[in-house]
Amino acid sequence: MKPTFISILTLAATSTLAAAQRLAPREADFFAEALNQTPAPTSLASIHEHLASEPHIAGTPGDQRTIERIAALFESYGLVVRRQPIWAYLSYPVGAGVQVVQGDADPIDLSITEPPVEGDPDTAHPDLTFGWNGYAGTGEVIGQVVYANYGRLEDFQTLADAGVDCRGKIVIARYGGNYRGFKVRYAEQAGAAGLIIYTDPADSGYMRGLPYPRGGWANPHSIQRGSITTLSYPGDPLTPFIPAVEDAPRLDPEQVDLPHIPVQPMGWQSAHEILARMDGDPAPRSWQGGLPTTYRTQGGADLRVRLRLEHQRRIVRTENVIAEIRGSTWPDEIVLIGCHHDAWGFGAADPLAGLICVIESARSFAALAQEGWLPARTVRFAAWAAEEHGIIGSTEYVEQFGEELTENAVAYINLDMAAMGPHFGAAGEPSLAPAMIAAARSVPQARNPDKTVFEQWAGSLRASDPAVMSLGELGGGSDHVGFNAHLCVPSAGFHAGGSDGTSYHSNYDTVAWYRMVVGDDYEPALMITRMTNAAIAQLTQPAILPLDPSRYAAATKNYVDQIAAITSRSPAFGADRPNALDRVATSAELFRLHAEPVVRRLADTEDIDPDRAAAINACLMQIERTWCDAGFETGRSWYRSGFSAPDQSSGYAAWMLPALRHAVSLDDPVLLEERADAYERFFARATELIEQAGRLLP
Amino acid sequence: MKPTFISILTLAATSTLAAAQRLAPREADFFAEALNQTPAPTSLASIHEHLASEPHIAGTPGDQRTIERIAALFESYGLVVRRQPIWAYLSYPVGAGVQVVQGDADPIDLSITEPPVEGDPDTAHPDLTFGWNGYAGTGEVIGQVVYANYGRLEDFQTLADAGVDCRGKIVIARYGGNYRGFKVRYAEQAGAAGLIIYTDPADSGYMRGLPYPRGGWANPHSIQRGSITTLSYPGDPLTPFIPAVEDAPRLDPEQVDLPHIPVQPMGWQSAHEILARMDGDPAPRSWQGGLPTTYRTQGGADLRVRLRLEHQRRIVRTENVIAEIRGSTWPDEIVLIGCHHDAWGFGAADPLAGLICVIESARSFAALAQEGWLPARTVRFAAWAAEEHGIIGSTEYVEQFGEELTENAVAYINLDMAAMGPHFGAAGEPSLAPAMIAAARSVPQARNPDKTVFEQWAGSLRASDPAVMSLGELGGGSDHVGFNAHLCVPSAGFHAGGSDGTSYHSNYDTVAWYRMVVGDDYEPALMITRMTNAAIAQLTQPAILPLDPSRYAAATKNYVDQIAAITSRSPAFGADRPNALDRVATSAELFRLHAEPVVRRLADTEDIDPDRAAAINACLMQIERTWCDAGFETGRSWYRSGFSAPDQSSGYAAWMLPALRHAVSLDDPVLLEERADAYERFFARATELIEQAGRLLP
Repeated sequence: MKPTFISILTLAATSTLAAAQRLAPREADFFAEALNQTPAPTSLASIHEHLASEPHIAGTPGDQRTIERIAALFESYGLVVRRQPIWAYLSYPVGAGVQVVQGDADPIDLSITEPPVEGDPDTAHPDLTFGWNGYAGTGEVIGQVVYANYGRLEDFQTLADAGVDCRGKIVIARYGGNYRGFKVRYAEQAGAAGLIIYTDPADSGYMRGLPYPRGGWANPHSIQRGSITTLSYPGDPLTPFIPAVEDAPRLDPEQVDLPHIPVQPMGWQSAHEILARMDGDPAPRSWQGGLPTTYRTQGGADLRVRLRLEHQRRIVRTENVIAEIRGSTWPDEIVLIGCHHDAWGFGAADPLAGLICVIESARSFAALAQEGWLPARTVRFAAWAAEEHGIIGSTEYVEQFGEELTENAVAYINLDMAAMGPHFGAAGEPSLAPAMIAAARSVPQARNPDKTVFEQWAGSLRASDPAVMSLGELGGGSDHVGFNAHLCVPSAGFHAGGSDGTSYHSNYDTVAWYRMVVGDDYEPALMITRMTNAAIAQLTQPAILPLDPSRYAAATKNYVDQIAAITSRSPAFGADRPNALDRVATSAELFRLHAEPVVRRLADTEDIDPDRAAAINACLMQIERTWCDAGFETGRSWYRSGFSAPDQSSGYAAWMLPALRHAVSLDDPVLLEERADAYERFFARATELIEQAGRLLP
Repeated sequence: MKPTFISILTLAATSTLAAAQRLAPREADFFAEALNQTPAPTSLASIHEHLASEPHIAGTPGDQRTIERIAALFESYGLVVRRQPIWAYLSYPVGAGVQVVQGDADPIDLSITEPPVEGDPDTAHPDLTFGWNGYAGTGEVIGQVVYANYGRLEDFQTLADAGVDCRGKIVIARYGGNYRGFKVRYAEQAGAAGLIIYTDPADSGYMRGLPYPRGGWANPHSIQRGSITTLSYPGDPLTPFIPAVEDAPRLDPEQVDLPHIPVQPMGWQSAHEILARMDGDPAPRSWQGGLPTTYRTQGGADLRVRLRLEHQRRIVRTENVIAEIRGSTWPDEIVLIGCHHDAWGFGAADPLAGLICVIESARSFAALAQEGWLPARTVRFAAWAAEEHGIIGSTEYVEQFGEELTENAVAYINLDMAAMGPHFGAAGEPSLAPAMIAAARSVPQARNPDKTVFEQWAGSLRASDPAVMSLGELGGGSDHVGFNAHLCVPSAGFHAGGSDGTSYHSNYDTVAWYRMVVGDDYEPALMITRMTNAAIAQLTQPAILPLDPSRYAAATKNYVDQIAAITSRSPAFGADRPNALDRVATSAELFRLHAEPVVRRLADTEDIDPDRAAAINACLMQIERTWCDAGFETGRSWYRSGFSAPDQSSGYAAWMLPALRHAVSLDDPVLLEERADAYERFFARATELIEQAGRLLP
């Protein structure tokens, strides 16, 4: 219904937003404003209750019912829904037991369950599981105990340096410091017979604040679940690079490097039963956690722990659910927004604190579409399957639809667990910064409507100049990796925090927990939904895409300096800054000098003929894709981007300029020189493309 | 017996120590070398056992027996001993009880005793006391509970800002962060009815390492005793400024600002009984200690604690014990070395880890004296009384003999608790740095005889250039304050640390604890004794005193910058650096430009006629005394030095340039300008004096 659209545009002519127009073309702002009439706390709360009504681990009946609920919601708004079935190799617990065996005394059984708590009836749901880690090995082992702090590479190195032998032992490590899968990998490499991972009260528990249900932090029983795979690719373990369709060719599970040893998570009350009985040398000072005992590295000969685990791995069916609203002007160009739907329990925070915003955003677009007002580009709203087992749904999506996405995807925005508090932040490719900043300038701050999100966000970054404000680094660990690291579709992740507690991957991740800790006003979710709507509008509405590739230069210089700091500490590289790094930084700088004037002219262009705009957009998108096409070798061929990858040894953090980081991790100066060539190629090609775009301007 | 002396000097002529000679004139090095033939671990161990054979709180029969033992030791070496009786107003415990009262339940008695531990029979000695704080108020109080973190001024401010009312409450605070007396003062000012001070396991206990007797750290019962006076002068509370002789005129105790409220120290097991029952808002994150509970600021209406204390204050007699060895050449000029002898229990660490080195040093001098080889200047070895109650013995000494000391004291070295590990450090007036550095170059490092103490020490300071190496700041809290802050006799404190644990002021401060934690090799005590001998030799032997006043300039500039950082945060001072501070720094710099060339020439002078040397030394000593004579107002008239004073609000730390610091603490820019005048006067007078010394050189 175009009349509405035009009348709002007319109003805009008198606006005083002249300064903002450079960053945010007028139409996008008004479309965002119209979209943001719809989101409402009551709606968010009701979707939240609906989707957090039962545990829904990927591949279970609860998962299937959740998928149906999501599809039904999208359909109720009048949106077209596509469901992508996936047959993935998932892991499930069958049984488990942990015992402490000391001397001749009777073995003591340790609890690995989370008892129901008063005031939260959800915590008594019969479908909740005992604590487990996805893809843990099956078997029964018994051994002496070694404490390995956070189970990082450097922690196992410290143990080795101190002459502590992990072979045949049960290693106990605390959560935190890295992705839990690497704790398992390093424990296996050290020869451990089994691994216990527990939540220390210094990291979440009484040391941080009041435990649930009195406060938001881990209580003595809270157990963090989570997958422990560390494959060199995300997604279904049996179908790397290809979609996990029903009849896909599959790897033999025996040939896939999944964990072998039994791994058991537990709460700190059970861990205390082990740690307090240990009798070796005190652990290094920084290894001391918050339990009332001196932490030791070894348990001694008299103390043993028995782990008995039975887990199953099998191929199961689940589904991505994707709602689409087709663009009115450039329907082939697509902006995607997503969050996974599977959870380790109810998933009120993880993932629903993000998924409800995806759905509420879809409702906002649908409401305008009902009036005939469509976005100029196509928007897809995705609820991804089986993220928790290993980022499976979104990976299979990019593997199945990679060609279309490479051709047409403008950007991806990820909302995993996004609305956890009032303090907004965003990570993502630097080229998306102008669109995200423009969006943040138009949305009121949660619980403080006199401020914009931008003001709070810039304050937290201590950088209020939008020209240099940058997004955080996207690491691994969620559904953006297929988009930004495999397809080189620029991606952003939103996250709003600032609440006091965490129920992460525990059976206490319930609506009651969320409303007590994050709040029952749904203001953070309202803010995230509005930010999502506004960011999409910034990306769908302007004729010229608001991508700013010139920002890759400053980011590259920054990351090159970080890598230089690593090489300066490595004997393999010597004291001088490697020439390779200077080459990369200088080629980036040269690109910046060419790109910045063009980007400025692109941002100032209001009227442009559609064919020219399309050609310019093709150049801008091609620069992004060149991160995947310039021949970067990162040591893990699935991660194709030369700009960003997950950290190879911690999993959650980011490895920026991963082809260089990988060479440095191998202490190989010759390889570093070779790898620098690809970055020079990237910036040379990007310079050509941005100049081509410049020549297309009127 | 001069021949020995001469033969060693002859050997020196061929030495390769040319470079060291500038810093340490030859004779001092050889005297030090001769002295250091005597100290022996077996002797130190035997003195240690002898003096730590029973508890000896000041004024008790154990104290008197310890005094006799010390005097007998000195006399057995052939030294002249003087005993200075002191009649001081001390505090003693009579009875105490602490109860937790919750709702209608029976009150729970909390332990305030330290049970004997296996393997350390000393801990069962009948003269050991329950836990108490010297000068605590007497009475019975009951009230709700407030937790005040470390009980610092800022902690009570945080409570006030949060609307927590301490009036009529029992405040519980943990040890650490300031001198315990200020916890009491601030609690009284906040209206508390009583105060509990406990040792948190995050500060000493299982979080730091294994508790005693398995390791060196506080066990659940370990109690830190200690005095809690915060008078504006140290020493006997009833006789400020004058010696506490038997018939001294005394203040009425009612007129002296001693603590009023009951104050009870306890171990963390008892404190846990209170903290775990508290029910208010969680405390700020940094207030969380190491007990397995979320720390709250308030206990709530249902929780009360009852304190019942009976303490006595009375005038009792004790004694300083001072051994002297008269100088052969300049007998009127005196170098003093001391450590207190009183303790809260056995005192194996505090004070005996220092006192045994004083006594072993005296034995070293006595051994040479037996051969007729005397130091050129007089040396006094002091065992001070009643330091623990309030630095009483040494204060009464400087008050009684102030005139002689002002005239003749070259330097004071304090060894309180000095030999606690292998890592040497020294604090003191900057002018003493060259002598201390020269000493450290001549003494082997404990447990690593291939290195000198200097190498280890310089490494820990990351400054190996002796020309700029500085000593640490002397704060309050031990027997140097009478010398450096009241008389302006330049002073140093030695401390060697690096052991894993503390028995500070507990009944576990026994020889067994010391030998387990610090070691039974007595290598640290051997090193401290040798450092003491060498430092004395550097001060007694050269004709020209090795004082370098030019080093006050760099120190002053440094402290002025620190004070500028404080004024820059105070609205009273505005953003500009106060002119007063620039005046002080500039006058210091001007002094440096005059002083450095003279000091260099003084250090290079080997042969000088005795009268000229005496006149030069008078100038050097007069510069030191000018810190007391230039009219500095510090807000506490007993602390006369314009260079250094104890921190007015923490007690242990130092207030450098205290006349300026005091003006800044009052937020008074006008006063700061006035106070700067005295510093300009100091540096002008010091410039005159150093130039006078220069003119006296041949």
